[in-house]
Amino acid sequence: MAKTKKKEQPVILITNDDSIYAPGIKALAESVLDLGRVVVVAPDKPQSGMGHAITIGHPLRLQKVPFIDGIEAYTCNGTPVDCVKLAVDKVLHGKPDICLSGINHGANHSINVIYSGTMSAAMEAAIESIPSAGFSLLDYSMEADFNAAKVYTRKIAIQLLAKKVDKHLLLNVNIPAVDESLIKGIKICRQAYAKYEEAFVERKDPHGKIYYWLTGEFVNFDKGKDTDVWALAHNYVSVVPVEFDLTNYELKKKIESWKF
Amino acid sequence: MAKTKKKEQPVILITNDDSIYAPGIKALAESVLDLGRVVVVAPDKPQSGMGHAITIGHPLRLQKVPFIDGIEAYTCNGTPVDCVKLAVDKVLHGKPDICLSGINHGANHSINVIYSGTMSAAMEAAIESIPSAGFSLLDYSMEADFNAAKVYTRKIAIQLLAKKVDKHLLLNVNIPAVDESLIKGIKICRQAYAKYEEAFVERKDPHGKIYYWLTGEFVNFDKGKDTDVWALAHNYVSVVPVEFDLTNYELKKKIESWKF
Repeated sequence: MAKTKKKEQPVILITNDDSIYAPGIKALAESVLDLGRVVVVAPDKPQSGMGHAITIGHPLRLQKVPFIDGIEAYTCNGTPVDCVKLAVDKVLHGKPDICLSGINHGANHSINVIYSGTMSAAMEAAIESIPSAGFSLLDYSMEADFNAAKVYTRKIAIQLLAKKVDKHLLLNVNIPAVDESLIKGIKICRQAYAKYEEAFVERKDPHGKIYYWLTGEFVNFDKGKDTDVWALAHNYVSVVPVEFDLTNYELKKKIESWKF
Repeated sequence: MAKTKKKEQPVILITNDDSIYAPGIKALAESVLDLGRVVVVAPDKPQSGMGHAITIGHPLRLQKVPFIDGIEAYTCNGTPVDCVKLAVDKVLHGKPDICLSGINHGANHSINVIYSGTMSAAMEAAIESIPSAGFSLLDYSMEADFNAAKVYTRKIAIQLLAKKVDKHLLLNVNIPAVDESLIKGIKICRQAYAKYEEAFVERKDPHGKIYYWLTGEFVNFDKGKDTDVWALAHNYVSVVPVEFDLTNYELKKKIESWKF
């Protein structure tokens, strides 16, 4: 598929996982409004924790909806990854110059990259050779203040558009929930090794049957100062370049000697 | 959490994404039945393409069900990843020695590792420090012949149990859909760079509204002879060690020079 209108203005595809009605996606679109033709294709309902899910067993629909003046916007009844796939094939009829996902309400640093619909949407774009970035603010609230975040989403979008970047470039960007004046700048990091220690909450329904709510305590096992968790704790914006070749080359060498 | 009954027999957790009613999971359980205490926690309905989705907004339930004689088995109404989390916290009350996922009806080589519920379940176990493997047979049919596959699931389970393996070890194992006599052995591989070229099928519902079905043609861009796609095409069982640190260290070096 050919790039769309490359010589005119760049095409910026925007999506997220909190749905088109979340303040975070409006903040992201506003922050890059003048950098190109902005097109939004986002879920019609919250899709947090959907990871890289795709919709196989149900039909998908697109619905043109009002958004910000001057921005073409659609909702999709599928997952964040479906949104990117449909945007390329049925809305843009070609690849955008870049794809931006977010701004997520809540952190997607460390192991969250695996569960995050925001990051999976951006990863899908990167797989399709569209340089992309996922953005998350460390504030789950729907009333979160995106003013500082918008400064950084714009800075990074400008870099993605200006540079000859790797076509599979994928950045996981997390922004501390503090006033802009307190942010120390951008830090390029690696993904911290951290995970959730599960503790399902057990309840009984009115019929006496047990059910469970997934909860978990976030535990960081990684004391490195080059990690995203460290950077965020010290008021840096963390940027982790992410890849989708999941081969563990170190282990590959080790197990080549196994005798089956 | 302490390992459960390590000194007695090893505990083998089995899950999948095709649901507990798929023949593939029965084949997997049968192949390792005598290697330890086998416990099955699997989705109550097909969950293909669910990737690393977790269930946040709905309660989860476990239901003890009949399976193979001598095997404790439960269905869960959540995703494959939910199954692993619930198995550890609410069924085993501790970590199993290994986790095996599959046998998936259909390939999970190359980029499929990202979309696959089978592999995401195994990855969740690896994140939780449980050595694990996901198995897939290159035959989507519910009538697929798992006899050759069972030979290799067993071989690999024996390796995982016998060796002092890395606690985060995660193997993506794909098995060609041919007679056992034609399989040339196991090949340790890297993940091929391949993807789906999307082509949504557009239809109109009886009310005149457009909807789309996700389809796509698999395209392999990677001509390397060290890839899983190559190995499978040449009748090897492909084994790719997989990791969940998604940091792209090569790109990290490159973008450290960016001026924001």
